[in-house]
Amino acid sequence: MFSFELEATCGAARAGIFMTPHGPLPTPVFAPVGTQATVKAVEPRELRELGATLVLSNTYHLYMRPGDELVRDMGGLHRFMAWDRPMLTDSGGFQVFSLGELRQIDAHGVTFRSHLDGSVHRFTPEKSIQIQHNLGADIIMCFDECPPPLEREVVRAACERTHAWARACLDEHVRSGDPHRQALFGIVQGGIFEDLRAESVETLVALDFPGYAIGGLAVGETKPQMLLTLEQTVPVLPADKPRYLMGVGSPEDLVNGVARGIDIFDCVLPTRVARNGSALTRRGRINMRNLQYATDSAPIEEGCTCYACANFSRAYVRHLVKAGEILAHQLLSLHNLHLLLTLMREMRAAIMDGTFPDYAQEFLANYQPTGKKAKAPPVA
Amino acid sequence: MFSFELEATCGAARAGIFMTPHGPLPTPVFAPVGTQATVKAVEPRELRELGATLVLSNTYHLYMRPGDELVRDMGGLHRFMAWDRPMLTDSGGFQVFSLGELRQIDAHGVTFRSHLDGSVHRFTPEKSIQIQHNLGADIIMCFDECPPPLEREVVRAACERTHAWARACLDEHVRSGDPHRQALFGIVQGGIFEDLRAESVETLVALDFPGYAIGGLAVGETKPQMLLTLEQTVPVLPADKPRYLMGVGSPEDLVNGVARGIDIFDCVLPTRVARNGSALTRRGRINMRNLQYATDSAPIEEGCTCYACANFSRAYVRHLVKAGEILAHQLLSLHNLHLLLTLMREMRAAIMDGTFPDYAQEFLANYQPTGKKAKAPPVA
Repeated sequence: MFSFELEATCGAARAGIFMTPHGPLPTPVFAPVGTQATVKAVEPRELRELGATLVLSNTYHLYMRPGDELVRDMGGLHRFMAWDRPMLTDSGGFQVFSLGELRQIDAHGVTFRSHLDGSVHRFTPEKSIQIQHNLGADIIMCFDECPPPLEREVVRAACERTHAWARACLDEHVRSGDPHRQALFGIVQGGIFEDLRAESVETLVALDFPGYAIGGLAVGETKPQMLLTLEQTVPVLPADKPRYLMGVGSPEDLVNGVARGIDIFDCVLPTRVARNGSALTRRGRINMRNLQYATDSAPIEEGCTCYACANFSRAYVRHLVKAGEILAHQLLSLHNLHLLLTLMREMRAAIMDGTFPDYAQEFLANYQPTGKKAKAPPVA
Repeated sequence: MFSFELEATCGAARAGIFMTPHGPLPTPVFAPVGTQATVKAVEPRELRELGATLVLSNTYHLYMRPGDELVRDMGGLHRFMAWDRPMLTDSGGFQVFSLGELRQIDAHGVTFRSHLDGSVHRFTPEKSIQIQHNLGADIIMCFDECPPPLEREVVRAACERTHAWARACLDEHVRSGDPHRQALFGIVQGGIFEDLRAESVETLVALDFPGYAIGGLAVGETKPQMLLTLEQTVPVLPADKPRYLMGVGSPEDLVNGVARGIDIFDCVLPTRVARNGSALTRRGRINMRNLQYATDSAPIEEGCTCYACANFSRAYVRHLVKAGEILAHQLLSLHNLHLLLTLMREMRAAIMDGTFPDYAQEFLANYQPTGKKAKAPPVA
């Protein structure tokens, strides 16, 4: 269980298969995010139809509501949300650190107040792993500290804590979990500092995790800083283990990440921008509220084969967005996920064919990043 | 085009087929309501999968947004919302009368302010028909006045206006429409008064519409008053034309309506109660927020074959409702529509088999109406 086989490489880009108890996970792969045990506005059968193979759900949110013990008693997260393919849970760390003044960190964990009712809770490495055992995802994550990536001394302290907590997570997983049922991934921290990243990799690799995440990116650094950090960090990671870039997922980031050797991605972006009335396309993001679409009979994206584009006009989608109709969220979420999942499949095929550099270059040449118009992610 | 063939009767209940330019419409039939050119939270392919054959959309809402001329320019309502089966539009009358102080009625029409931006508009019988021509539904409705059903003098005056407007609608339809493409139904008014209903039927039947609606019910009278009015009105309607009970659609109302000879129904109830977190079942309505469902692994309704019941527990649906997830609206809407559409198919089969009275009796014996807990419909 949890073997990782590389099928092809093309420069730094890799095509592989990660075996899980819920079936093979072809990589590179993008995981839609189902924060509260549902990918917002998308049915599990639709995720399947879109070709999604991995779904991420959030430990913090499910611990809060409906409670991880309830999910366990209902047969685990797969059964609860009717998703029978591979699943990943985060550790809850990112969410509790995002609570700002509602949380207090110490050497052994984080005490925080619920964003729902203000009640006091405490996450430790052990607690995070226990919750993730109850949820039962195939891939679970170490409880880490995710600091602002630009302040060296803050990052260094967070690394030390992250490393101590990684050992505690591993111990708890071995003690009370089943490493054949759930693979615990380590999370590399180190901000934008090459030496700290290298040191973090070295420390975690000594613990021999079945996969490694790169955490603490896409949370404040510039795009060039993020890409440089990937270029510095990925080469020192073991080649025979999957590499997961957490929380990243714009179309250009996926291409740039794969080009630098990343295997797994997740992001709320495609479904969040959908609910804001925007569509991702191969040329960039478009706001469906724009008046220019009012009488536009073309689909959201010409040439797209998703259900939304095969059946509806931009004029109709704009009407739904303007009228506040739920179907707008449904159709735009389907389209945006379709684009990212198709992109991942195309990149995998290009890696297998040895044509990935051309593919990536052409994609990026056509793509206009949103840049300053992109909204910052909300807290928690 | 628009022929109506009766296939079987069983007491007053009838099974028929109404031919439309978008295919045959087996009756009795329930039409899900797509107020703003979408049945809320349900994709057209899902409506098809549920076996929906007729969808209603609202003239008032589409006139306001995105505008009936835009819908016409986009190829008509069928194409705009990707629904290729029969469709029905109301006249806008019910909505503009519901605007209360925002509207003023005179002999020739209604002047009103938009609920969206306060702008002033005017509907006349001619205007309503012109809008419905632009929308292009298979079945269109006369612009009528729908008064409170219990005040005789108010009802009498509304009948006179309704009859004059019915003539004006028919004239406009013949003048500028295509009666082979769109069937204009007359609407019988008369409140709970047998003689006024009979007079309304007589007046409208003289105009020879291809179908007749019973309007002005389910807007203030008691259930026994509604059923008595059906028993008094249906027998005087022509047997060879479809009969449409407007705005009615709880499970028990559908059974009671079919038992009294109604062929067509529409109602927002199944999708509206879904968005309020409630499920319709064969035993009555249940509020999925109830604590008792928190750890209930049973489906919403035992024995139901809909997508929601085949895949998800009450515990999961409750979680979605409590967490405010869109998927709650999707799953409950699918389930509620599935129940009503299945009910209609079962009633049709029972009429064909000659077992309808037993079927209706058994259904009503098991069903617990919501009674006073039911919410009044909102304005417009």
